[in-house]
Order: sequence, then structure tokens, then C-alpha cells
Amino acid sequence: MNTYPLLDSLAAPQQIRHFSLPQLEQLAEEVRGFLIDSVSETGGHFSSNLGTVELTVALFHHFDFLLDRIVWDVGHQSYPHKILTGRKDRFPTLRQHGGLSGFLKRDESPYDHFGAGHASTSISAALGMAMARDLQKQDFTSIAVIGDGSMTAGMAFEGLNQAGYLETRKFMVILNDNDMSINPNVGSLQGYLNQIISGQYYKRWRDRIEGAIKAIPVQSVSLRLAKAAKWSEESFKRIAVPGLLFEDLGFCYIGPVKGHDMGALMKALAEAKERMAEGPVLLHIQTQKGYGYTPAEKDPLKWHGVTAFDAEAGEMLKGDASKPTLPSFTQVFGSTLVDLARQDEKIVGITAAMLDGTGLNLLQKAIPERCFDVGIAEQHAVTFAAGLAVQGMRPVCAIYSTFLQRGFDQVLHDVCLQDLPVTFALDRAGIVGADGPTHHGLYDLAYLRCMPNMILMAPKDENELKRMLLTAIYSNHPAALRYPRGSALGVTLDDPITPLPVGKAELLAEGSDLLITALGAMVAPAVALAKQLETEGISCAVINARFVKPLDEALHAHWATHTRAFVTLEEGCETGGFGTAVAEALSRRGITRPWLCCAVPDHLVQHGDPRMLMDEEGLSPEALLRRTRAFLQNLT
Amino acid sequence: MNTYPLLDSLAAPQQIRHFSLPQLEQLAEEVRGFLIDSVSETGGHFSSNLGTVELTVALFHHFDFLLDRIVWDVGHQSYPHKILTGRKDRFPTLRQHGGLSGFLKRDESPYDHFGAGHASTSISAALGMAMARDLQKQDFTSIAVIGDGSMTAGMAFEGLNQAGYLETRKFMVILNDNDMSINPNVGSLQGYLNQIISGQYYKRWRDRIEGAIKAIPVQSVSLRLAKAAKWSEESFKRIAVPGLLFEDLGFCYIGPVKGHDMGALMKALAEAKERMAEGPVLLHIQTQKGYGYTPAEKDPLKWHGVTAFDAEAGEMLKGDASKPTLPSFTQVFGSTLVDLARQDEKIVGITAAMLDGTGLNLLQKAIPERCFDVGIAEQHAVTFAAGLAVQGMRPVCAIYSTFLQRGFDQVLHDVCLQDLPVTFALDRAGIVGADGPTHHGLYDLAYLRCMPNMILMAPKDENELKRMLLTAIYSNHPAALRYPRGSALGVTLDDPITPLPVGKAELLAEGSDLLITALGAMVAPAVALAKQLETEGISCAVINARFVKPLDEALHAHWATHTRAFVTLEEGCETGGFGTAVAEALSRRGITRPWLCCAVPDHLVQHGDPRMLMDEEGLSPEALLRRTRAFLQNLT
Repeated sequence: MNTYPLLDSLAAPQQIRHFSLPQLEQLAEEVRGFLIDSVSETGGHFSSNLGTVELTVALFHHFDFLLDRIVWDVGHQSYPHKILTGRKDRFPTLRQHGGLSGFLKRDESPYDHFGAGHASTSISAALGMAMARDLQKQDFTSIAVIGDGSMTAGMAFEGLNQAGYLETRKFMVILNDNDMSINPNVGSLQGYLNQIISGQYYKRWRDRIEGAIKAIPVQSVSLRLAKAAKWSEESFKRIAVPGLLFEDLGFCYIGPVKGHDMGALMKALAEAKERMAEGPVLLHIQTQKGYGYTPAEKDPLKWHGVTAFDAEAGEMLKGDASKPTLPSFTQVFGSTLVDLARQDEKIVGITAAMLDGTGLNLLQKAIPERCFDVGIAEQHAVTFAAGLAVQGMRPVCAIYSTFLQRGFDQVLHDVCLQDLPVTFALDRAGIVGADGPTHHGLYDLAYLRCMPNMILMAPKDENELKRMLLTAIYSNHPAALRYPRGSALGVTLDDPITPLPVGKAELLAEGSDLLITALGAMVAPAVALAKQLETEGISCAVINARFVKPLDEALHAHWATHTRAFVTLEEGCETGGFGTAVAEALSRRGITRPWLCCAVPDHLVQHGDPRMLMDEEGLSPEALLRRTRAFLQNLT
Repeated sequence: MNTYPLLDSLAAPQQIRHFSLPQLEQLAEEVRGFLIDSVSETGGHFSSNLGTVELTVALFHHFDFLLDRIVWDVGHQSYPHKILTGRKDRFPTLRQHGGLSGFLKRDESPYDHFGAGHASTSISAALGMAMARDLQKQDFTSIAVIGDGSMTAGMAFEGLNQAGYLETRKFMVILNDNDMSINPNVGSLQGYLNQIISGQYYKRWRDRIEGAIKAIPVQSVSLRLAKAAKWSEESFKRIAVPGLLFEDLGFCYIGPVKGHDMGALMKALAEAKERMAEGPVLLHIQTQKGYGYTPAEKDPLKWHGVTAFDAEAGEMLKGDASKPTLPSFTQVFGSTLVDLARQDEKIVGITAAMLDGTGLNLLQKAIPERCFDVGIAEQHAVTFAAGLAVQGMRPVCAIYSTFLQRGFDQVLHDVCLQDLPVTFALDRAGIVGADGPTHHGLYDLAYLRCMPNMILMAPKDENELKRMLLTAIYSNHPAALRYPRGSALGVTLDDPITPLPVGKAELLAEGSDLLITALGAMVAPAVALAKQLETEGISCAVINARFVKPLDEALHAHWATHTRAFVTLEEGCETGGFGTAVAEALSRRGITRPWLCCAVPDHLVQHGDPRMLMDEEGLSPEALLRRTRAFLQNLT
């Protein structure tokens, strides 16, 4: 266990403004020690936070963030910011229900100016703040800190493009270059940044300039030779400015700066403050994910988001070993896709910086040439898939439910309007737990259901997931399947798998009092609910809907007609989702029955243990039983 | 009237591959003549198509687009492509119901490989095609043609970033630089391209290199002077490669090339074909919107999209002059925003390359410092607005309904989750007519309704639009108002205007048989419908809903309870929109009544005259009456 005398004595971050260099270095060391101690207890995002310790301390030395503004992109790297702004003592509650959020949050602290869980929003937000400042004739500095991974998203480019154009003063983008998003980075921009850091960019320029010198006419050949000899490193570097790409976009580029060297950071920030008087600055700092904690330095991916761990041994604590572990939906998806791709050369996988999270890493290992990680670029991922489909391939886009929001227009405009056979595999659908509001996958049913030609489904278990993936790939239409984060149910898996009839639901039980129809992860609770109600003398018809679109209207109509009321169950927003689809269909057919909609109400769902959240939203087994009983009582 | 002997003799575009330079030049001239003659009769997109005549002819000389692939970004510039691919004789039907589409369309021609009406999708789509080609071991070239305006969207950058990384061969991006999107371009990328074309980029480099030479140590001063003198233009240009930004992203840059000089284009395309063997090429060509038709050259914005015109006089044909012209919703929005902004310094307007289309040009004229056109960059526009809101401003984002789809995630993640007071003014909501499927604003109600904290409304007339704008701006929450393209109703305008109570509908008539509830543009038809039904002895309660969210549940419940059935009317998709909201609310309250949903069915709506399309979708006054009568008959 470390001690943190300087950190403990910090009453307000403004004190850091008066610290000496050794004090700043000590503070950084203490923050890092605290991070290791604290996250080893609670779990949380780890590697990226270790990378921004020095930067955060240095920023608090140069700026007062009650006045100045800072937007940390995504927020994976904002724990040091939280530690220094009065939230250190709340770290034991990190990412727990009612506790500290794992991201920035406006209502958590006056130092959190803009929240985010999705990438690449920071430049736009910070630029908006800078413009508001200028219009209101205020005087402060507005800063966006963005990782190289987030920089690949087009939105970041859009922000740079306007900031450079506006020549915004007192505005800085800090590019925190750790050569990683969650997975190692891809894209030519990354190659460019690597060239800068490795010095290869200079080499390219040296070749270019030497070529130019050689082209000087022969009569001045002696000059040419003299030239080649005399061209000093110094004068050379004046031409071969790294970061010219950013200069071309209207930014003053400073860097690359070693991001764990407090002295270098101090100097660079001082220079940046000066240069910001003229226009926007891009400060390129080079950091290392996991810096200062050897196991995380060696495997930053493994240590990106962690559960509790033994800090000294560098080992994650295992859960209860006696409990047999079930496969996750993610794993089942990943391995099924590999199986199908082995049988059909037309199948390709695409993801946007979520190789591991979606299980697409299995395909990458098995058939790398048919697996594309496009980086944090959901928009491109979707239309790239559309292009593949046009040429007869069968693309499968694996993107978390919440992140596919970024590709909404592309799914609608490029895929659905052209009725192209692209499959969307939406992992992390429903309530995700500790990541909170920005990551819950609650809206996919509503936002995909309005798209023409879309087939939209959710599996009740991992075997149905396999069958739905097969169904989607060969449906010849846009098709999406959504499934939750975490463990599957442990059911027996068919071999071989067979496709499902599109638009057909599965009747699980007949009944005469109440129709219970459920989607995906809510099918099992629906069955349990029906069983309990049967013991209370209520006869329940139970449907596993399978398809939200096309909905099995006939089956629903039949059982709605033969019962007195209906209950819909889904893990998604109540506005416009599955329950709505059922109610819509029945109403349009003139079948008028009382309806209990069990879905996530139209409000923000906070972070915390998923079971607790499900209970709060009225979707735990107990809540469902209570609500259904009350609903039935009101009927009579 | 021009004649087109060569064009008329063209049986297949493959013949162009054997044309000589003079023939190619003649063909281009004829295509231009045909364009002017034809569009002057039908109207359509004009300036951009005049700009791509030579490029299109040159491309058909170098490539066979039954084998090679081409994606024209947006498609505003694809008429020459259509003329050369067997669709010349159908041009009299352009943009008319059942006639030629104004954009590329996969089911219209085997030469249309990818359709689009939204910008910046071409690079991703063409890259997907190139990858499919490589995986299937085929051999053809894949080309994206993209305007400089579309290049500002982040999605284009995402595509470049992956293409450069993959080092894709036989893949080319043609940057059609006409220094305009619809409105003149903004953004630092544009500044960069202008520098290249104007030669200022060389000047910047000359300064940079001379600075470097000066830094050579003093002892070699004579060399330094010699150097400065001898540094030839030739050797200099080898260093100061324009387009270095694209080279840094992994592309081979060729350009700038004069895009109306057929000889120059021939040479450049030949070079591009060679260079594509190594990796991706970016060919930068400089064209002029409206080229070859003087009035359009002088005012390309006015001539971007035109109605029929007198080609010789260069004057648009006026509509029926005897008919008094009503103001458009766009104009009323624009002038009301100016009025409000004059009274409140916190109000700012933001748009994404739609200054004229949204009426925000009025604000730009009146208060330029509080009007931001961010270029084609809807994602950034929304989060930029969020940043402004955080600092206490009252931003109004004016974006067409269909284009806000591009900012879906930002509206949800940045604005709604943080409950920031940003107003979204959605012009072109509903059926837009000639632009067709990619431009109809049918999905906004469904995709905005699922977002927590969102206030969502639609005005029945221009006076209500004014009141809703006021209501939205001061609601202290995210708020959206959507209104149709075209003429308003000509009602009297309040002065001063007053806000509406949020979530309250307006009861227009009491009745005992049928509840008719309508949204926005469908309120007037609802009133007419009710009047007709009254004459047939059916007593109708009529509600102007005003708010889709929060819906006035109490008023709807009251009148649903006091009638036997209800009809909902909206100009939007039937899945998850306004009618659904009403049905949802009533069902949840246990009010079970038969429902007729008059909305746009869940399929693609083609292009054509809006009245004709409304009739096809069952939303014309006649169709509404017919459907309601049938619905009522089925009840009894």
C-alpha cells in the first residue's frame, strides 16, 4: 500500500498551480500509487488512466478548471482528473450503484464540463465552449484531450476542420498518443503519428529534400555537393516540421512531447499557452498505456478495463472458482461466425475498434484476410460493409448497440434504402451495468425498427443466437440481431444449426387468461413469470417473439384474442421498441386489450450492478411478478 | 436548341473508349448542350452537373463501368453519367413520378453501383467494393468521385484513413474541387485546397525553405546566397508537393488538374492508372460549378437546383404570377430566429452547409457573428451546439430532417443524456417530392421520440411554428420542431408571439363518434376530414397534438374515452411515430379503442410530385376520407 502525503494534503486543485517541479513529480507519483491501490480494489478502467497521470497534474498546474474548460474525450482517462478534484475519497464506490461514475459527469462535479462515453466528441464540445466564451466576451482557455484512437473518428476531423477555419484563440487540442485505442490502432493517421514519433517522418523528408537537391542543374554541381554536406540537422528540421498535417488544417503543432516527463510537459504547456494567443494549438504528447505498473505496461489491452486485482502480484482476482463458467454471448457469436465463414468465402467480419469486445478477434485469428477492424469509425464501417455487399459479399458488422448509434444514418441511407444484405450483430444490448448511461444499449430496437427493409431480432439463448446469425447472413436483406453483455444460459447447442423462418415467433405455452410475450433476454424471465402465475390460477400463453420486425402479427393476434390482456417484456426503452410493436400491430387489427409494457422507462438509467438496475427499472423477476399482479387486479 | 450528333450516335458508353481527343471534346460539348436544353425544360440539379461533364466523358474513355466501379458522391453531379449510360431519352421525365431519379439508383441502371443522396459516403462504399474485389480475386478499378464540400464530413476522412492504411491498389478518390458545397465552403481543409490551387501553398513553402536556408551557419554564407539564387522552381516543387496532407494519409496525390481541359484530364487519368498499381491515388481536379453556362457560372448557388428556365435568356420561368405567393415555413423560421436573436444575445444559429435551405442565411446577414455554418458536418454541428449550451448560450441547430440522421448519436449522447438546452429546427420534414427516398424526412419522429429528455413538436401552421421556436429555445431542455418543405398556410401572425405550454395539445372540435388527432401539416387535412364526416352524420373530436413528446395524454385519453375509435394523422413513417405515441399512451392507460393509423407505410417512398406521392401513401384528402369511411364501416 502506498502513502499519499501530498495528495492527502490537497484541499483544492488550485493549490497545484503553486507547486514546484519536484512537488508536481511527487504528486504524480502519489496519484499513480493511489490509482493502483484503488482500482485494484474496485476494478475499472486502468491502463489509459495510468497514461494520463503526469498530463493531468501538469494541466492543473497551468490552468484553473473552475474557469478554464477541459473535455476529456471518452473519459477512460479521467480518473486522475477525478482524484485531483475532490473525489479521491469516493473512489471505493467507483462504478458502483450510487457511486462515482467511470466517466466525466456534469452533475458529479463543477470540474466536469462535458460528459462522454462515446469517442471523439471532445473537440466539437470544447470548440463550442470557446465560441460561447468569445461571444460572451469572457476570457478562459478551452482544452480537448483526445487519444489517437479517438482521432480516427470522422467527428474529430470535423471539429479540427472548423477550429482551424475559425482560427480560434485560447483553444487547444491535446493529442494523447499512446498508439492504442482499446485494441491496437489502425488507419493511416496512426501510421503518420508513428512516423513522427519514431523519427521516420524526418527520414522521408530527408529523402525528399535530397532528391530536390539532386535536381539542381549540373552546372552548380559543386554547390550541390556542398549543400548536401552543409545541410545541418537544425535547418533541416525547420522544413520537415512534423505535424504538418495539422498545420495544414490551421493548427499550430507542438510536439512530439514525452508525456511522462513532467519537465517536458511543463515546457510544452507553457509554449502552448503562448502560441494559443495566435490561434488553435495541437499539442502532441506521447504516453504509454499502463505506464508505471509493469503488468499493465506489458499487456495494456488486458489491463484496459479490469476487475479487482492483487496489485503486488499483478494478477486479477478470480471469481468464485467453484461456479462453472458459462460461455458469453460474445464468445458464441464469435465462434459461430468463424464456423460459418469457414464454410462460405463470402462472409466477412467488420468492426470498429471492438475486436475483442465483440468476439471478432476469433475471426481475425482464424481468417485474418476476411476480418476488418476499421478503428473508431462506425459510420465508415457500415458503408464499407454496404460496398462489400454490393459486390456479392456477406458482411457482418459487429458493433455494440450503443456505438451503432454513430452509424444510424449509414444503416438507414446506405444499407436499408438500398436493401443490401448486411448483418448487424449488436453486442451489449440492454442494460450493461457499470459503464452507465452512455453505454446502455437501450435504443436499438426503437431506432432500427423504423427503417424499411430491416429484419430485427433478439435471441432467447445462445443456441438461438447461432440460428439468428445464420438466418441474418442469408436473409438477403439488412438484418440485425441484438444480445446482451455477459453470460449466456448454458443451453445445448445444435449441430448443425438451421435457420429460423423470418417473422415467425415461437409459442412456448398456451393459455387463456393472459398473453405474455417477450423478447431476447426477457424470454426466460417471462417463462418463470408464467409458471408462477399458473400456480396462482392464471392461465398464461407465452410467446418468444424472436422477431421485432417483421413481427409475427398472426400469432400475437391469435393469442391476444384468446386472452383478456397482454404483457410485453423487453430490455430496451419503452418508447417505440418491442412492446410498442406488439401494441401497434394489435391496435391496427382492431384487437383492443389492456396492455402492461415491461420495458425501461423513458429516463436515464444510471450505472451500477445490472441486477440492481433491472430491479429499479421494474424488470427483475420480483418486480415483474409484482407489476403483473397489480395489472391483473386493475383489470377486474 | 443544340444538336448532339455524336451523342445521338452513341449506342453504348464503351464506344467512348475508342474516341480521339477531338471526339471526346465534341462529346463533352454535346453533353453540356443536352444538359442545358434538358434541365431548362424539367428543372433539376444544374450547376454541379455542368461542372463534371469533361470528367465524366474522360472517365468513360479510361474505364468500362460494367466492370469497373464508380461511386458519385451525393449524385448531384451524375447527370452526365446518366446521359452517357443509355438514359438520355428519359431525361424529360427527370425527377418526375415514375421517371428518372435525380440521383444514382441501383435499380435504374447497371452503371449505377451505389446510390446516395446524403454526402460523403462514396469513399467508404468504393473501398468496400475494392476489398470485395481483392477477396474474390477479381480485377477492376474502384473509383469514388467526391466534391470538396463532401470532403468536410468526417465520414470521408474515415474512409481515407482506412484506404491509406490498407494500401488498396486500383482504388482512386477523385476530389472534384469546385470550391463550393451548395453554399460556399467553410473549414480549414477548404483553405488548404484553395492554397494549393492558388499557388499560395508554394509561397508558404518558399518562406519555410528560405527560413531554413538562412539558418545555415554563417561561415557558409556565400553558399547560402548562391543557394537562394539557384534554387530552381523545379527542384523547389519537388519538396513543396501540394496534397502532402493526402500523402501523409497514405495516398499518392496527383494534381491539381484543370477539370475542364480534356487533354489535361486524359493525361492525369493515365498517370493515375499507373500509380494505382502501387496503392490508393487521390486525383485533385479543379472544376467550376455551372461551367459553360454563363448565368450559372456567375451565380452557381442560384443555379444549384433549378426549376424550368429559359435557356437563352438565362431566366427561371416564374410560376403562375396571378397566384399570390405565400411565405415558406423556411422563411418564417429564418425571420423569427432573427427577431428572437435580436432580443437575446444568447441565441446562436448553427447549420451544416444549409444556410439558404434552412433560412439561416437571414441570421447570417443580420448577426453574422452568431451564425455558424460548419459545412457538411452534422455530427460536429450538434456537439458544437452542445458545447455552446454548456456555457449558457441558446443554440438553434437548423438541419433538414433527413440530414439530422447523421447526427443521431450526438443528439442522443451529447445533448439528451446531458439534458442540454439545444433547439433542433428540422426543415423538410415529411415527403419532400422530387429528391426522393434519400431526402424524405420520414423518420425524425421515430428516431427522436426514443430519446430521453427530448421535447418533440410540429406546428400546424407558420404562426404555431413561431410559437414553437420560442417555446423550444426557452424550454431548458433538448427540443425539436419539424415542419415541411414549401409554402406555409398564409395565416395571420401574432405579434408579439407567446410560448406554448409544453405537452399541451389543442382541442379544435368536440365530438362523440370519432377522435381525429393530427400532427403538424396534417392538422389542416384533419379539420377538413372532420367537416366532411360531420356532413355524413359522424361527430368528430379533433385534436391538434402539437407535442409528440411529451404527448398530451390526458386530452387524448379524455376524447378517446368519449368516442368509439380514433384516427391519427401524420406525415412520417408509421413505425414508432406520432400515431404510435398516441396508441401507446392509450393502451397503457387501458383505453382500448380501434385505431386507424394514417402515416407513411413502412416502405420506400419514391420521388415525384408531393401531392401524387401523398395520394399514393393514402394521405391525400380523398384517400383520408376513403380510408376513414372504410374504417368506420368495419367497426359496425
